[in-house]
Amino acid sequence: MEPVILITNDDGVTAPGIRNLIEAVKDLGKVVVVAPDSPQSGMGHAITIGKPLRLDAVDIFEDIGVEAYQCSGTPVDCVKLAHDVVLHRKPDICLSGINHGSNASINVIYSGTMSAAMEAAVEGIPSAGFSLCDFNFDADFSIASKVAREVAERMLREEMPEHFLLNVNIPKVKAKDFKGIRICRQADAKWAENFDKRKDPRGRDYYWMTGKFVNRDKGEDTDIEALNSGYASIVPVRVDFTDSNVKKWLEKKYPDFN
Amino acid sequence: MEPVILITNDDGVTAPGIRNLIEAVKDLGKVVVVAPDSPQSGMGHAITIGKPLRLDAVDIFEDIGVEAYQCSGTPVDCVKLAHDVVLHRKPDICLSGINHGSNASINVIYSGTMSAAMEAAVEGIPSAGFSLCDFNFDADFSIASKVAREVAERMLREEMPEHFLLNVNIPKVKAKDFKGIRICRQADAKWAENFDKRKDPRGRDYYWMTGKFVNRDKGEDTDIEALNSGYASIVPVRVDFTDSNVKKWLEKKYPDFN
Repeated sequence: MEPVILITNDDGVTAPGIRNLIEAVKDLGKVVVVAPDSPQSGMGHAITIGKPLRLDAVDIFEDIGVEAYQCSGTPVDCVKLAHDVVLHRKPDICLSGINHGSNASINVIYSGTMSAAMEAAVEGIPSAGFSLCDFNFDADFSIASKVAREVAERMLREEMPEHFLLNVNIPKVKAKDFKGIRICRQADAKWAENFDKRKDPRGRDYYWMTGKFVNRDKGEDTDIEALNSGYASIVPVRVDFTDSNVKKWLEKKYPDFN
Repeated sequence: MEPVILITNDDGVTAPGIRNLIEAVKDLGKVVVVAPDSPQSGMGHAITIGKPLRLDAVDIFEDIGVEAYQCSGTPVDCVKLAHDVVLHRKPDICLSGINHGSNASINVIYSGTMSAAMEAAVEGIPSAGFSLCDFNFDADFSIASKVAREVAERMLREEMPEHFLLNVNIPKVKAKDFKGIRICRQADAKWAENFDKRKDPRGRDYYWMTGKFVNRDKGEDTDIEALNSGYASIVPVRVDFTDSNVKKWLEKKYPDFN
């Protein structure tokens, strides 16, 4: 039977990145798209619980013969609705993206793209999020599309470990400078915020979030290092957040907690 | 020097849970509160990037001598603003909650309470999120308050490992049935969604998210099992999401990814 490939993103159903992803994999199975009706960058793993959701069929990918729905909620809502309302079954794999901008390192926790893929992985659907390190609306997705297809083919070819989830980032490089795909760990980096304080026309303060990405990790096996060297990075991601090392430390330190 | 304790939550600055947390720890240091101005449950690790933020001093905890600010953004925004705009330094510890409702097991990824604590941990601030397994607005927070104080005291007493982050959940039990605190791992559970489809007055479909919590994990060392047995559960949480086991599996399986 033809595999079912669920595709979603966080930049919204009209973003060039999702069309590139669909075109890259559409001959590998039956592709169904359920994506937000508006940009949802930075939504993390948000879900919509206080208000109802809309879900509507759209003909935006009719030209390439792909069924698509737009949803008023977050990327995670899209995956939940896709499973329960659109497909009435688990898709065989879930692909999210291609995001306009990096989700490497700590960005995994803010990213709607990765949260959608993570939601699918929690459900037991092998999943991958793809992000191109280029924020431009008219970025060149050709290398990213090839990487996405390569990864999707392998995910469909054989059984993956339980809760399988990949964070795949693609560098902004010319084809001749692209070095290949590398398996990495998440770099220990963070955003150093610097809020821009302004006054509104009524004299009241407001703040714009700005920030600088700070990589504290000098390791050669990180996603940031791979991207800087011209490789696409693959970081396998856990949905069990338990820190086993700290668990052991606590058990030893506090034997009265048992 | 007196330690600075940052307190936030996701139920909003007026929720009873945050007042209980403040009262439980306020004599342990200088407490500063930066919390959302409205409920933010289920916001996960969302950040506000497309619009500006408001941050205003409020006198809601003046009766107990505690400085407080409300923010128009998400719990993660609160932590970022607290660091950069309110305190102009790292607090010594960050406490989030006490949440009205469980954040055990997979709820850690949807929880604004835990995302606020996680944001602080990324920044290198030892952090803990506290959640009481009782959704009632007028729930009894007395056991939860004692647990929060006990944990905060230990976090202040000595140095914790890097990126220290605890997910602490407290069962809804009477004092006589409370068994103590147990260090656990995150149970492998999920929400099985069942969207409630309705028609609006104009005949258009809309959906309410409903779901059932499904625990697939029979282990005796999980947070769910501890809570069911009358214990408060502590799960140490990672901010490095790399799955080392799957990384090894991939490296062996796909030597061409290197």
